[in-house]
Amino acid sequence: MISVVILGTGNVAQNLFEALIGTNDINIIEVVGRSDDSLSYFQRKSKVSTDWDNPPKADIYIIAVTDDAIKEVSDKINVSGLVVHTSGSVSLSTLSKHKKRGVFYPLQTFTSGKLIDFNEVPLCLETHRKKDFKILNTLGGKISSNVQVIDSEKRRVLHVAAVFVNNFTNYMYSIGNDICSASDLDFSILYPLIRETANKIEYLSPYSAQTGPAKRNDLDTLHKHLNFLKDKKQRAIYKLLSNAIKASNEKEL
Amino acid sequence: MISVVILGTGNVAQNLFEALIGTNDINIIEVVGRSDDSLSYFQRKSKVSTDWDNPPKADIYIIAVTDDAIKEVSDKINVSGLVVHTSGSVSLSTLSKHKKRGVFYPLQTFTSGKLIDFNEVPLCLETHRKKDFKILNTLGGKISSNVQVIDSEKRRVLHVAAVFVNNFTNYMYSIGNDICSASDLDFSILYPLIRETANKIEYLSPYSAQTGPAKRNDLDTLHKHLNFLKDKKQRAIYKLLSNAIKASNEKEL
Repeated sequence: MISVVILGTGNVAQNLFEALIGTNDINIIEVVGRSDDSLSYFQRKSKVSTDWDNPPKADIYIIAVTDDAIKEVSDKINVSGLVVHTSGSVSLSTLSKHKKRGVFYPLQTFTSGKLIDFNEVPLCLETHRKKDFKILNTLGGKISSNVQVIDSEKRRVLHVAAVFVNNFTNYMYSIGNDICSASDLDFSILYPLIRETANKIEYLSPYSAQTGPAKRNDLDTLHKHLNFLKDKKQRAIYKLLSNAIKASNEKEL
Repeated sequence: MISVVILGTGNVAQNLFEALIGTNDINIIEVVGRSDDSLSYFQRKSKVSTDWDNPPKADIYIIAVTDDAIKEVSDKINVSGLVVHTSGSVSLSTLSKHKKRGVFYPLQTFTSGKLIDFNEVPLCLETHRKKDFKILNTLGGKISSNVQVIDSEKRRVLHVAAVFVNNFTNYMYSIGNDICSASDLDFSILYPLIRETANKIEYLSPYSAQTGPAKRNDLDTLHKHLNFLKDKKQRAIYKLLSNAIKASNEKEL
């Protein structure tokens, strides 16, 4: 039996909570939050508390708060168990108050009110001391079938890559949405295309999957599209990305 | 019974063929291709031909060739049925040789060797003459549950939006892949994130779904990421997109 305290009440905390609470051999001792309100989600199924200074004894403390609050929480708690955070971009040394420290980074985007199937979430694990790894790995393996040893350097790389495939991709969706709205078109007409674009790269490398006017160097269409786009920001993005795609074609020759 | 001739043998032609051949009340009279080789996919299930000038009599002729070959094919064929092309960016007037002309644009990305469930593909239909619309609409309704009347102007808008959500998104995946490869990380660790990023916008608007360092104006992380990125093209894209996301935050204030 592994005992766990969750510190934090946001989307990551909620998703972790749901994954952990349904699992044999894991005991959620307590969820710590800033207010009764933020704890209301958890209180029917678990002990909750607003006392951040002295969480109860547990094997693992999962700090699932915003990046800039991790250090404050870590410095505050007096515990002897393994302390981990869940962030892709925060250094392991932020938890340096604790000899037993590590990272438990679920490489996924979490949305309020939408639970994720945690079994498919890649869990990137790291501990400061080798001997603390086993228990973290056991915990990870109980909720996900995709547990990976990822050190701080690789975690940083993954976080940058995630910014491209998640943040920037979502921003491409945003522009698509804006372009549709401006012409009274329902953005939902693009959902099947968006879904298939994501599916496709599990069969083909993104490089092979690249299509479109820039890829086939169709200058006429590129020109027409730039003529159509009036928004300065959209034009700049269209130009830069099309040129980048054209440049990768040339590399190929 | 609607009789159809397909002119072309590429990914769109293959996907259309599979969708149409399994459908009651539709008869594929012939598939026309440039060579026996390109027709081999079709010949076990249908009549095939390499004679582009005189396709057999049919209700609808679907020209499913590359954009720049549409005019040549349209000008070559002598037929009295409805002639449509399947392109998002080619004007309807390209088919002006034919009084009965239209567009049958499946808003999807098609990949060699990977069949799509056509029932979920949005079909954007348009005909030059009102009275030709009915038969095209009937044909569309038999293979897709998402048939839409989209005129040439809206089709052009959708095509620009599709470049952002498909071509540019795929390019973001490409950069993610390159970043992972350079650090010996398997790109597949990002698949669940990519899938969820695409799913999420069917619950939340892309604007509400936006997360990441630029969205939360986390200058420290932005700076670290730019320090990490050595590739000039990747840096330029990171900067431009982060600034665009930051600017949309400001609009919000």
